[in-house]
Amino acid sequence: MRIKAGILRSAFESMKGKVSHSDRLIPKDEVNRFMIDSLSKVGCPHDHSLLLSDLLLQADYRGHFSHGLNRFEMYVDDIRTEMTDPKVTPAVLKETPSTAWVDGQNGLGVVVGDFCMKLAIQKAKDSGIGLVSAKGSNHFGMCQWYSEQALNDGLIGLSFTNTSPLATPTRSKDRLFGTNPLCISAPGLNGDYFTLDMATTTVALGKIEMQRRKNEELPSLSWALGADGHPTRNADEAFNNGCGLMPLGGSETNSGYKGYGLAMMVELLCGVLADAQYGPFIRKWMNRETPGKANLGQCFISINPQVFGEGFSSRLQVLMDVIRHSSPADDSLPVLVPGDPETAHRRKVDSEGGFYIQKITLFLMLY
Amino acid sequence: MRIKAGILRSAFESMKGKVSHSDRLIPKDEVNRFMIDSLSKVGCPHDHSLLLSDLLLQADYRGHFSHGLNRFEMYVDDIRTEMTDPKVTPAVLKETPSTAWVDGQNGLGVVVGDFCMKLAIQKAKDSGIGLVSAKGSNHFGMCQWYSEQALNDGLIGLSFTNTSPLATPTRSKDRLFGTNPLCISAPGLNGDYFTLDMATTTVALGKIEMQRRKNEELPSLSWALGADGHPTRNADEAFNNGCGLMPLGGSETNSGYKGYGLAMMVELLCGVLADAQYGPFIRKWMNRETPGKANLGQCFISINPQVFGEGFSSRLQVLMDVIRHSSPADDSLPVLVPGDPETAHRRKVDSEGGFYIQKITLFLMLY
Repeated sequence: MRIKAGILRSAFESMKGKVSHSDRLIPKDEVNRFMIDSLSKVGCPHDHSLLLSDLLLQADYRGHFSHGLNRFEMYVDDIRTEMTDPKVTPAVLKETPSTAWVDGQNGLGVVVGDFCMKLAIQKAKDSGIGLVSAKGSNHFGMCQWYSEQALNDGLIGLSFTNTSPLATPTRSKDRLFGTNPLCISAPGLNGDYFTLDMATTTVALGKIEMQRRKNEELPSLSWALGADGHPTRNADEAFNNGCGLMPLGGSETNSGYKGYGLAMMVELLCGVLADAQYGPFIRKWMNRETPGKANLGQCFISINPQVFGEGFSSRLQVLMDVIRHSSPADDSLPVLVPGDPETAHRRKVDSEGGFYIQKITLFLMLY
Repeated sequence: MRIKAGILRSAFESMKGKVSHSDRLIPKDEVNRFMIDSLSKVGCPHDHSLLLSDLLLQADYRGHFSHGLNRFEMYVDDIRTEMTDPKVTPAVLKETPSTAWVDGQNGLGVVVGDFCMKLAIQKAKDSGIGLVSAKGSNHFGMCQWYSEQALNDGLIGLSFTNTSPLATPTRSKDRLFGTNPLCISAPGLNGDYFTLDMATTTVALGKIEMQRRKNEELPSLSWALGADGHPTRNADEAFNNGCGLMPLGGSETNSGYKGYGLAMMVELLCGVLADAQYGPFIRKWMNRETPGKANLGQCFISINPQVFGEGFSSRLQVLMDVIRHSSPADDSLPVLVPGDPETAHRRKVDSEGGFYIQKITLFLMLY
């Protein structure tokens, strides 16, 4: 996925002139400026541009380069080719005090997701829990951008999305599920938090591609299936004509059927619940030739700990601290809580004053 | 865990006389009769005995022998030694139309769970979703017994419980989590259904013990840690002085941190949310010397698909049928939907007229 649109290339080249520390470091603000200007040129309303640029910026800020600026071209292309309508806002189709069914109307995934997550949070504040199910959505980027919105209000947040078919159920040779991520965030004390943001496959496709480009084998037989439907270490085969990504766990011996079940759970809560596309019926990833809208299904949940036992965040903090201070198997590898790697990367970006462009451009070339 | 209590041994021996097809087959009704009679003798109220016996019977019926009759002695012992109060019923501490916080008051896990699941289902019918969080509970057996209660009403059901520490976070040497299962059930058409009922570790402790008894190595390095905190194939070491079960995924290369994150997600929704015991603070498994109540935390959710897009079960049915009819990698291994193995086992028991005692007694000897 190279930057090919002239509008983006020129904006991107112009960005290089704004570096402050070296010819590879770009300040966060400049990355943001670049995205907002580009989106303006393809007719995206300013408030929607702010959402999309923040979604991608926060991904790079957390070290999730696979969901940051490198995906920007995809969103711009979806707007330019009218696959997505950047102007529409979502509509609520059905509602109870604790639930809502939303039609994203083929708007930007981030616009749909932001609307739904805020609605789920409001319902959790009002009634203890909110579940908002969206159809008619598009690729919504990094899951944790949504779930973490709940943290400021002391709430638990969850977000799920279905995605284009890349993963294969245990024993099957057919790609019937996406990487179908699930995400949960919960607040500790003093800004500390837990965020699990995971694809339900062992790895995302980008990691297979990375091994292929490095001319290296896959490091285990839990990542991907070969052309015969059995696990392979051949990165080329896995990427080009393999039978798909393996679910978390890998082989049946290692309970890969649990990862497959989790992918199906996410699909139930997304496309099946929302009456959106689901499973094998979702259009292929990056396939511009597939006609029609993506019509992805997504699910957003918020839970208010206040309606249960007092002191949720204190207990979570104790648990996180116990984990971090537990005995490491290897002294050079600290025991981490899900969310810690992202926090560490944010500190790194802050101390360095921006992102290193070489890292971004490397990932720009990857799916 | 051998049958050692005389009361159980004699009741169990008497059961052998009731076999109908061979000297190893026991009718379901006779297993049920045995449990209800035994529970009556230790002072369990009849309505609670009916719940507990059904919970265990349904596990054996589905082929989950690790959660059936073989666990019966543990529950009886908990009653006899007054670790659990078989007579109490749960109390609602806080409630909204969509949530409830319940104190199980150290009652039988099945009594607490049944109460909470029925409450969650009622709330889902009334308001679209119900989440019930329980503290003061005990071991509640097989998760799917609760989640599947939602199916008859066309609802989605979920159940979670924390458990005694056996599993180790990625990079750590300390057992800080239980096998922390999560379970989700959803209705298809004509009685067909999806049920994912999974520990968040690669395997349960029973599988390690099984390899040890067979004098065989563990089949992979994704199951358990050795004494040094690194993966081992030595079943003896893993069972006796290893650092714990590995989370789903196994090593860091195979994204075992996702399984660890899932265990933590379950803990958040159980002990941390309910203000029950949590993580490393839960008493050890089968440790009768540990003073105090188990005070487990559990979570029960039901979602009413009717408040979202119409036709949920039809779409789920299509998805399940597509999966089952997908191309198998190995023609002798059919592609299954989570829940299919249980359905197949129920048919087997029905056609054979009961359980094979040899299978039950084999598992009686296992944790």
